[in-house]
Amino acid sequence: MSEINKEYLDALRGDVEQKHDDALVERFDALHPADIAEAFDALNAEEVSYCFKLLDDKERAANVLVELDEDVREALMERLTNREIIEEVLAYIDSDDAADVVSELPESRAEEVIAQLNAEEQEELISLMSYPEGTAGALMATELVAVQVDWSVAQSVREMRQQAEDVDRVHSIYAINEAGQLKGLLSTRRLLFASSSARSTIADLYDDEDTHAVRVDAPDEEVVQIMKKYDLVALPVVDEHQRLLGRITIDDVVDLMEEEAEKDYQLASGISEDVESSDGVWAQTRARLPWLLIGLGGGLAGAYIIGAFRIESFPNLMLFVPLIAAMGGNVGVQSAAIVVQGLANQSISEDNIGHRLVKELSVALVNAAICAAVIMFASIALQYDSSLSLTVSLALFAVIVFAALFGTFIPLLLNRVNIDPALATGPFITTANDIIGLIIYFSIGLALLP
Amino acid sequence: MSEINKEYLDALRGDVEQKHDDALVERFDALHPADIAEAFDALNAEEVSYCFKLLDDKERAANVLVELDEDVREALMERLTNREIIEEVLAYIDSDDAADVVSELPESRAEEVIAQLNAEEQEELISLMSYPEGTAGALMATELVAVQVDWSVAQSVREMRQQAEDVDRVHSIYAINEAGQLKGLLSTRRLLFASSSARSTIADLYDDEDTHAVRVDAPDEEVVQIMKKYDLVALPVVDEHQRLLGRITIDDVVDLMEEEAEKDYQLASGISEDVESSDGVWAQTRARLPWLLIGLGGGLAGAYIIGAFRIESFPNLMLFVPLIAAMGGNVGVQSAAIVVQGLANQSISEDNIGHRLVKELSVALVNAAICAAVIMFASIALQYDSSLSLTVSLALFAVIVFAALFGTFIPLLLNRVNIDPALATGPFITTANDIIGLIIYFSIGLALLP
Repeated sequence: MSEINKEYLDALRGDVEQKHDDALVERFDALHPADIAEAFDALNAEEVSYCFKLLDDKERAANVLVELDEDVREALMERLTNREIIEEVLAYIDSDDAADVVSELPESRAEEVIAQLNAEEQEELISLMSYPEGTAGALMATELVAVQVDWSVAQSVREMRQQAEDVDRVHSIYAINEAGQLKGLLSTRRLLFASSSARSTIADLYDDEDTHAVRVDAPDEEVVQIMKKYDLVALPVVDEHQRLLGRITIDDVVDLMEEEAEKDYQLASGISEDVESSDGVWAQTRARLPWLLIGLGGGLAGAYIIGAFRIESFPNLMLFVPLIAAMGGNVGVQSAAIVVQGLANQSISEDNIGHRLVKELSVALVNAAICAAVIMFASIALQYDSSLSLTVSLALFAVIVFAALFGTFIPLLLNRVNIDPALATGPFITTANDIIGLIIYFSIGLALLP
Repeated sequence: MSEINKEYLDALRGDVEQKHDDALVERFDALHPADIAEAFDALNAEEVSYCFKLLDDKERAANVLVELDEDVREALMERLTNREIIEEVLAYIDSDDAADVVSELPESRAEEVIAQLNAEEQEELISLMSYPEGTAGALMATELVAVQVDWSVAQSVREMRQQAEDVDRVHSIYAINEAGQLKGLLSTRRLLFASSSARSTIADLYDDEDTHAVRVDAPDEEVVQIMKKYDLVALPVVDEHQRLLGRITIDDVVDLMEEEAEKDYQLASGISEDVESSDGVWAQTRARLPWLLIGLGGGLAGAYIIGAFRIESFPNLMLFVPLIAAMGGNVGVQSAAIVVQGLANQSISEDNIGHRLVKELSVALVNAAICAAVIMFASIALQYDSSLSLTVSLALFAVIVFAALFGTFIPLLLNRVNIDPALATGPFITTANDIIGLIIYFSIGLALLP
């Protein structure tokens, strides 16, 4: 699908090595900035820096830099002077990307760069960098096209022409009053088809219904929720006085959604930091070891429990230890996953939590009854001792019901105390359910076995 | 965040029960169609149908219907006549939604509805419904604004004004030649600022660089990939002769991405069908039971292995069975998750598979060495027998390395034979690694223990 395959990269590296600058320039001219960035991501820092200097259209070059992987971009920026960063990068990119790029610089360098900007640029950049990560403010760009409701259409078109030079994609035109407060939207379509005729003002043209906006301090989940629900490609951001501060575009929200989905998926799989298959051995170890150590702790607790119950006198009881442990873990993870997704898409709320618990209990009872019956028949058919079969069957029933309730409660509890409930779906629930499952199983076994 | 909370719904139900039609109409006038749909999703079929008839703006009503949950929509459509479906729903919605809505009807009813459309509508609907799910064709709508390269700007504006009546959001204007082949894009901005002056034709204005398009039979992952990479809000769809057939908008891609992420997350958590916390007990049981039965099978295999190795003569060996089983499962799931995500975001490809395997092996060796050392010290500190400590430590090392390789190979293998690799991250890998882990552990134990 992508043009940037192994052959392409080998040829590219060859051109770099032999300093075939003309061939390289030709290559880059033929590619979209996102494709150039994809190629750069596969090169080493030396090669990236060499190629970057060959990009003679500075706007394109700046867009390539924005699209690079973070570590590649950091290495490249180390090799740029402050002046190059300001005049060849920041000058060409959107304010939200500029804030991100400067944030990635080492602190002292970021300060140097900011100090060399003019007062207006400084203020804008510092204010954008001050919004905490995870809020609408940290996602928004200040570039947008806004017209005042008291302007005539002709004046608006003049002003817009100027404003639009800084805006890659207009998407929406915002109607504001003299105080800068957002009043509504002006569709490009409406303006496109009205502009030739009308002498009227923007007040006659803008649409104040269904104008969705978000507060600058709103959490980014709210941004995602609103843009998804109302199918928006751009969402205006306002302060507490409804003054228009910036806008968030759908491409940034798509990236955010993807990061969130990857994070939840990784947590469910027992990976605690955002890593990729391309990250180094140490980064991957650091992300994976914590959960493995939790698993080890759980395993040691399991060894202690087996010892404490003196199970050596009931060797048969040991046969089904793996089964009980596995089933507790599996059921707990399923239940937790359902709750985590329900919380994420807001189908679970304070209003219906009781109802959900009753349903989860019903599902658990049905699954538990079926599994208990299956294991009862299977163990009898396999000629295990009948009191052992009864023990396993009863214990399995109890473990499934308990694990389902535990798997449901823990993410709800985490959510209540503002911890990411997805944390609960990883090895934590598996490990806890393993241990509790063993205790339930052995208790029933000691009571029932002769 | 949403206005549709429990109090609102209770009040709404009260109004429906007492047939306060005026109050209901006022409520619905104040809401966005997406919010009305959210409220309807919480009502029963009787109530939905009653409220739906009160929506007197038919375009809004049709948009509400499109936004409903599938089961709510199906129940509502059962209560509409064919004529109502055609004149009050299909007439107002985009072609892609129309194809989806008609596909949801029972087959005989879908045929009746199609038979009552005019020839042109029939052809469009049947052709849209014929694209297989999972392809660009099934995602696209035919509503778009296109101008011919040989048209003058004035003629184009006239034509566009007419075409745009059917298009909710213009996003892009496509430039086509007389044969209907896509030649490039015309930015609304460019037209907006050119239209007042120019006498030129579209050929002078359109941009033929970086015009991304997708073939109608391309898989939807390709659509997602292209739109994400190039930050597009609309992607034109062409046939094998480059003729423009329709376009895909970002809102549909956002929905698709979300569905995919939920599916992967559910598979990783051992849930085999797309279910939500709001689904019924039976739907949830059906989605969850298959994996539990696999787990049961694994547990029975574990019991067989413990019996076959005659572990009762080595009761100490039993102590660490839960630890070994859990660790094999945890490591396998981690490795599989890294591969599944790498395949999804294309950072793993045929070109670098060998390199990835070497890295995964390195990560596994580091994790295995650390975990083996930890368990060695811990079990000695806890005064377990030293040959048992050595056995557990060695077995854990072997199990972690094996589980990591197995967890890496299986999703790569599934991907090679065109099965969704995410299937590998669920209980399948956990169960397989549990069993193989036990065999490794017992084999080492029998060899080392006196």
